[in-house]
Amino acid sequence: MPVSSQEFRDAMARLGAAVNIITTDGAAGQGGITATAVCSVTDDPPTLLVCLNRTSPRSALFLTNRVLCVNTLSAGQSAFSNAFSAPSDEAAMASRFAVGVWGKLVTGAPVLEGAAASFDCRITEVMEQGTHSVVFAKVQAVRFAEMAAGCLMYYARSYHGLPIGQG
Amino acid sequence: MPVSSQEFRDAMARLGAAVNIITTDGAAGQGGITATAVCSVTDDPPTLLVCLNRTSPRSALFLTNRVLCVNTLSAGQSAFSNAFSAPSDEAAMASRFAVGVWGKLVTGAPVLEGAAASFDCRITEVMEQGTHSVVFAKVQAVRFAEMAAGCLMYYARSYHGLPIGQG
Repeated sequence: MPVSSQEFRDAMARLGAAVNIITTDGAAGQGGITATAVCSVTDDPPTLLVCLNRTSPRSALFLTNRVLCVNTLSAGQSAFSNAFSAPSDEAAMASRFAVGVWGKLVTGAPVLEGAAASFDCRITEVMEQGTHSVVFAKVQAVRFAEMAAGCLMYYARSYHGLPIGQG
Repeated sequence: MPVSSQEFRDAMARLGAAVNIITTDGAAGQGGITATAVCSVTDDPPTLLVCLNRTSPRSALFLTNRVLCVNTLSAGQSAFSNAFSAPSDEAAMASRFAVGVWGKLVTGAPVLEGAAASFDCRITEVMEQGTHSVVFAKVQAVRFAEMAAGCLMYYARSYHGLPIGQG
């Protein structure tokens, strides 16, 4: 292998990224994970992508329910990031949604009150890439906060609030 | 359309993202663009993706050369972002590389001195999604700066340096 996984992770730690809670609900049940691998694909029609680790049992929930909501955390919401990034059984998953105020928009996937932005989506395509599934999703509804709420970033393996002075 | 392009862009403006200069070189010529739509896919094997606007003539360079380098800008490098985001003809493109120090690693795609991180890649797969091509690339070599160099972020339609105090 030309580049080791560790070197790649060390380089990626230099690329700051927004922190998102990706949620789902439907026939397979409710769930959520923390993810930074979210990316705008095109605004015509509004489409984004999310990279999910297939080795996590929670990924199956998304692929079965075929809906997801990307909740981009505001600067003061790092507690949600920690809660949704720990591995969990079903009971622990339910308890995560007990903290915070959760609503819904069109698809039924949980929408976090106070998030910087929420993108409620239907999954349209999935592409396997090594250990991960790249999930393409068409945006059905959006909701967003005032810019003053800021955005929670993960950079150099720690949290930072944008704009400066937030968090 | 359930969500307008403008609403989608307004929501995406709340999702902070690192600023990258994506470069290429080869049979089709040298080129570069500014992009925030870059995402880690998997570290086994090290793979990332980049979303390119197919309506830009510069996108063709990448797809013909089949190599690219993602240069993640450090906090003080916003001048590169502006230079590489303006539309350009061939002469203007050449002049962009006259500013800054550019080297190469394995593929020959230009590597920017002082970038927070550079990911030198071979393109392995391309997926069309509306107006954009999602380009999957396997990382052949990386180079990265000290964390103290910081990372240039684009959030709320302006630049910010991370960590706080940079930029």
